[in-house]
Amino acid sequence: MKKVLILATGGTIACLTGEAGMAPQSAPPALLGTLDAFSKYYDLTYQVVLNLDSSNIQPEEWQTIARAVYAALPDYDGVVITHGTDTMAYTASMLAFMLQNLDKPVVFTGSQIPIEAPLSDAQSNLATALAAIDHDVVGVTIAFNHKLMRGCRAVKVRTMGFDAFESVNSSNRGEFFADGVRLLADRVEPGPGGCVLKDALSTDVFLLKLIPGTNPAILDRLGEMGYRGIVLETFGAGGLHYLRRDLSAPIRRLVDSGVAVVLCSQCLYEQSDFSLYEVGRRVLATGAIPSLDMTTEAAVTKLMWALGQTDRLDEIRHIFATNLAGEITIAGTEENA
Amino acid sequence: MKKVLILATGGTIACLTGEAGMAPQSAPPALLGTLDAFSKYYDLTYQVVLNLDSSNIQPEEWQTIARAVYAALPDYDGVVITHGTDTMAYTASMLAFMLQNLDKPVVFTGSQIPIEAPLSDAQSNLATALAAIDHDVVGVTIAFNHKLMRGCRAVKVRTMGFDAFESVNSSNRGEFFADGVRLLADRVEPGPGGCVLKDALSTDVFLLKLIPGTNPAILDRLGEMGYRGIVLETFGAGGLHYLRRDLSAPIRRLVDSGVAVVLCSQCLYEQSDFSLYEVGRRVLATGAIPSLDMTTEAAVTKLMWALGQTDRLDEIRHIFATNLAGEITIAGTEENA
Repeated sequence: MKKVLILATGGTIACLTGEAGMAPQSAPPALLGTLDAFSKYYDLTYQVVLNLDSSNIQPEEWQTIARAVYAALPDYDGVVITHGTDTMAYTASMLAFMLQNLDKPVVFTGSQIPIEAPLSDAQSNLATALAAIDHDVVGVTIAFNHKLMRGCRAVKVRTMGFDAFESVNSSNRGEFFADGVRLLADRVEPGPGGCVLKDALSTDVFLLKLIPGTNPAILDRLGEMGYRGIVLETFGAGGLHYLRRDLSAPIRRLVDSGVAVVLCSQCLYEQSDFSLYEVGRRVLATGAIPSLDMTTEAAVTKLMWALGQTDRLDEIRHIFATNLAGEITIAGTEENA
Repeated sequence: MKKVLILATGGTIACLTGEAGMAPQSAPPALLGTLDAFSKYYDLTYQVVLNLDSSNIQPEEWQTIARAVYAALPDYDGVVITHGTDTMAYTASMLAFMLQNLDKPVVFTGSQIPIEAPLSDAQSNLATALAAIDHDVVGVTIAFNHKLMRGCRAVKVRTMGFDAFESVNSSNRGEFFADGVRLLADRVEPGPGGCVLKDALSTDVFLLKLIPGTNPAILDRLGEMGYRGIVLETFGAGGLHYLRRDLSAPIRRLVDSGVAVVLCSQCLYEQSDFSLYEVGRRVLATGAIPSLDMTTEAAVTKLMWALGQTDRLDEIRHIFATNLAGEITIAGTEENA
């Protein structure tokens, strides 16, 4: 019988409806009842580490959760983290970077409807998360709607549907059917020595999603405000305007002053490639860092994490060219899923 | 034989590869050759109005394109606009608002590969756009990969694949098969009097996509910078943080000072609903304006357009609650597609 820690952080799964709208509770009876029913199959321990709507889960909470997981790892076969869906992809991405050389399953789950409601998806999602531990799916994973997705590849794409998450630019790690589970053979063996916690990060990161006509003055303002890193969501495969409102000159000023500028696409699927078009080559020439086929969630958390490890731009560039947790597809690796 | 104006604005469809990367040409021989071949079926006129990578198409170009379409409407059965894919969804959304009471088809198209290349999707996309005029699909539409999508519902979701666009929260207006076209019966008869051009807009609009830990100070800075409108991409169905970094207080200050703050979701699919959770109700209470199930592209362009028509917040709120061109689903209307 697998020994599993259930680490509760709040979220819809633990919500009860009050006068001010739904808000999470630390130990809703229906959640404890479901865990009690699962105790026939798993040796479960329930620990409340936070009790927040995930819109309120911020970098400091990522550290709290990562430390709680790290502390628990030696005593359990795996950890299930119950978490709101709204920012789950950000938290799961960050934990994939913080928990280096992770050698056990750490599985996020939650629900679109509170566990107290008859139509809730909570029980099914919890069962899927526990099954990931049964099958020893090592690494940080999101379990949702009968699917297992890499934490650093998942994106919340639906506000209301039960199929709330997609694994972007990467196959699901597992899918559950009536006749069992189909697992992707993507297991990367962790090195010796066990998990290492690297929880330093910088909160001085800004996400700038461009629109046609974005005033370049914002970039200098962000520099004045002391940001150390900026993720730019550009158009299509990698476009930004330079006519009349030149975005490349202030990007160059930022890079020259030591700010790490990371480029990604506002398209949900497929990789950006700034070498294809003249508009993209102009921005690559500024010294900005391409993020290849990473999701915005992974690019933002990776930049916050990288700035916690170093303040040297060449090292940040190297970190972004390195596949740390399955977050990027690099030609010639097994990550071409 | 339908009389069609082909209005060229540049884009990949018209690109040739040069030393600095691909850049559009005003009259690539392969494009003219394709149009010549189509002349058996259509009475075509080719007019170059711009010659830009669409990453350089900005609000001023939206006005240029809208005016050229408006001027041409009396003389043609429909207009096809060739345009880069990167910002096509923004331009098409804006034209849907600028060309009020549009009573003819205005169809955007382009390609993922230049028309000179053997694998190009340009010919097929042009043929789809022309077929939309054949079938008298009135309004602003994007024709791509054998699909017709409302301009104000389309989103570029893929950087490289031929199926680059999706119609978000709204069925395709038409799909082409070997045995013909299946059109959605969503035709809204325009009122009498013909199309009216309303091309005033404000460029003082900022898009702020939240990340966990977004520093609320940016909101006051945007106010100081003179922005008249801000679109906030919030988490999930409508969440933003208020613990430790309270985003709702500066939003209230912006609204109180007359800035139009519009709320949408960073999830691609389905509607936002700020009344469900406590975190959402807090921001609704600030006087911010919900955008329901509009895409970010539609919300940004609608806000720029609305600020061109009025500076009264109550009128902006009314405009956002009104379905102008099929951009929102309002319960009880025919737009529930």
